[in-house]
Amino acid sequence: MAHVDLIQYEQASKEVKEVFDDIKNLRKIPDVNNFWKCLANHPTTLKRTWESLKEVMAPGALDSLTKELIYVSVSASNGCEYCIHSHTAAARKQGMTDEMFGELMAVVGMANETNRLVHGYQVPLDPQFRKED
Amino acid sequence: MAHVDLIQYEQASKEVKEVFDDIKNLRKIPDVNNFWKCLANHPTTLKRTWESLKEVMAPGALDSLTKELIYVSVSASNGCEYCIHSHTAAARKQGMTDEMFGELMAVVGMANETNRLVHGYQVPLDPQFRKED
Amino acid sequence: MAHVDLIQYEQASKEVKEVFDDIKNLRKIPDVNNFWKCLANHPTTLKRTWESLKEVMAPGALDSLTKELIYVSVSASNGCEYCIHSHTAAARKQGMTDEMFGELMAVVGMANETNRLVHGYQVPLDPQFRKED
Amino acid sequence: MAHVDLIQYEQASKEVKEVFDDIKNLRKIPDVNNFWKCLANHPTTLKRTWESLKEVMAPGALDSLTKELIYVSVSASNGCEYCIHSHTAAARKQGMTDEMFGELMAVVGMANETNRLVHGYQVPLDPQFRKED
Amino acid sequence: MAHVDLIQYEQASKEVKEVFDDIKNLRKIPDVNNFWKCLANHPTTLKRTWESLKEVMAPGALDSLTKELIYVSVSASNGCEYCIHSHTAAARKQGMTDEMFGELMAVVGMANETNRLVHGYQVPLDPQFRKED
Amino acid sequence: MAHVDLIQYEQASKEVKEVFDDIKNLRKIPDVNNFWKCLANHPTTLKRTWESLKEVMAPGALDSLTKELIYVSVSASNGCEYCIHSHTAAARKQGMTDEMFGELMAVVGMANETNRLVHGYQVPLDPQFRKED
Repeated sequence: MAHVDLIQYEQASKEVKEVFDDIKNLRKIPDVNNFWKCLANHPTTLKRTWESLKEVMAPGALDSLTKELIYVSVSASNGCEYCIHSHTAAARKQGMTDEMFGELMAVVGMANETNRLVHGYQVPLDPQFRKED
Repeated sequence: MAHVDLIQYEQASKEVKEVFDDIKNLRKIPDVNNFWKCLANHPTTLKRTWESLKEVMAPGALDSLTKELIYVSVSASNGCEYCIHSHTAAARKQGMTDEMFGELMAVVGMANETNRLVHGYQVPLDPQFRKED
Repeated sequence: MAHVDLIQYEQASKEVKEVFDDIKNLRKIPDVNNFWKCLANHPTTLKRTWESLKEVMAPGALDSLTKELIYVSVSASNGCEYCIHSHTAAARKQGMTDEMFGELMAVVGMANETNRLVHGYQVPLDPQFRKED
Repeated sequence: MAHVDLIQYEQASKEVKEVFDDIKNLRKIPDVNNFWKCLANHPTTLKRTWESLKEVMAPGALDSLTKELIYVSVSASNGCEYCIHSHTAAARKQGMTDEMFGELMAVVGMANETNRLVHGYQVPLDPQFRKED
Repeated sequence: MAHVDLIQYEQASKEVKEVFDDIKNLRKIPDVNNFWKCLANHPTTLKRTWESLKEVMAPGALDSLTKELIYVSVSASNGCEYCIHSHTAAARKQGMTDEMFGELMAVVGMANETNRLVHGYQVPLDPQFRKED
Repeated sequence: MAHVDLIQYEQASKEVKEVFDDIKNLRKIPDVNNFWKCLANHPTTLKRTWESLKEVMAPGALDSLTKELIYVSVSASNGCEYCIHSHTAAARKQGMTDEMFGELMAVVGMANETNRLVHGYQVPLDPQFRKED
């Protein structure tokens, strides 16, 4: 439950409408998600976040599916319910199967476990991981 | 700086040696990392963690490189220095280039940013993300 | 949904009532929030937390609004839904505008992004940040 | 490396000295840890934190060892190196053995793993966990 | 609200049924929790997680109640609603009283506070915490 | 210790040099921090992060000092050593006194404590915090 208004397209300023249009065109969807309708309360953040996301999530050295898998991993580690729902949906659109999601979660869980074992034991860095200066 | 002893192969119990041998054989390395030498203080945890990690990180629906990228993503989000060093090294062995690492970090950073925007605005879940019950 | 009872004023012990009265008087509100009704299950924690909060949130070198903005920042980073709702409400009472909230979230999001870029790249500390010992 | 001065006993104000004396007497130690020497830069926080800690960590329904184990668990989850070192030392003083530490870390690791599996799968709350209102 | 199906016993594969049976027998419960019904979407993770949890949570150098208290501590720090509900329920079954829960939360809260004071002040490690190498 | 090279001005590409020049001019400093030298390994991320940071940290409805205080708060909550050092330095340049830093840390610590009390007790949202839909 947001504590700001969700800005709908009809009520949006010209600046916001341009971002909404760009999102709808690129993603071929009839309306933008609530995330963007919340950010539209602060048009500068809306525009900057969308421009950044568009650049960051575009396929490059990593393909779009891999990028979505990474997004889900981080969101699951942070416990962001909305982000988990929206990015698992996006990952499925990019081809993520149930089996892939199962393995993804297994790695995420394991990484969170060993991260804490490392912290708890205060494991010292091995010499081979040190970069020559 | 660990607050337990690093268990070296020579001083290890038979049970620990078997795990160390399995790690060395599978990874084709002359000695195990400090992580395992720390865990060897609690042989049950050593064995269980290694068996789990072996199963979880084996290539399946996701390949080994993708799994290492996910491991790095989680470790960077959690701020685990040791895990970042050891798993970026592992990812490079599996073929991660500098460009891929750059894009990986860009996604990780972006996901951590939008996770907090979602939390701060308390963005409500869109109806299309709700699963029919 | 709490897994303890919410202690209402009428059913509260004398010790709890005194804390509730102090909160109501200081904040000029007819009843205390659910947070305090939950803590009232452990009167020592109720009293200690209220005394600490009263001291910490009182205007000093930082004014009350700045302190509430910081509270919201931490709560958004931690993903604490209740704390985000209660402290954005408190911040608005202290004069936070929509524009200020928008900028606040932009900084919080950005800090969470760069924190992870720093972790992922393991950026070494610059000499000028080192304090002379 | 602190970015504030460590306040030594000799240079401390009367207010700070009183807290330092109380810590030294209660813990039967010749000098206070760096944590307190850092907090002494803000005497109000020093005093409040010490008074709170003294109250919270005193044996009650939970004994001192259990409380230290919980402290270590949280610190390992948060990745706070200093807190892990100081509170594992404190736990050992209270009787924590190597075997207990090993099991502690196993539970901490496991909890961090399953927490993320729960987040990732967005496991819905079972009816029996819902409190009747 | 999960974004996977909850696998019920009747529809489960033989492999999943065996794990479900083991959970039901060991815990003497008529049906497994939603956590396991979600994990059943990825039988390997289901089996590995259950085998690990069974081993880790069995009484050893630490008794079952202490282990559940630690589980709750980590889950409260991570903000995992489901885990807090299920493991406080488990802790109560093992004998946790309201007073014990109150003290538990007091320690968890305090540890999260001092962890951040340590981070913020960047408290340097005391020499006595350094292990001789 | 970074696991990438620090890109120095002399060896930088034209694209990187332009960003470095902009940072140096705006901040009136002879050389950029290691953060930027690390990011320069991925020029797109360097440019995007700098453009975003420049926009986000510029004085607006919130002044520069308040923005730096928020940055420090988030970084202390996340335990990012580098960010704490660089942004407390920046905050001091903007006028943060020792007393202000002391109060800042007190609020950050307290917020992290109450966030976990809220999580642990699962405090239900008060009706007055619910936005009318």
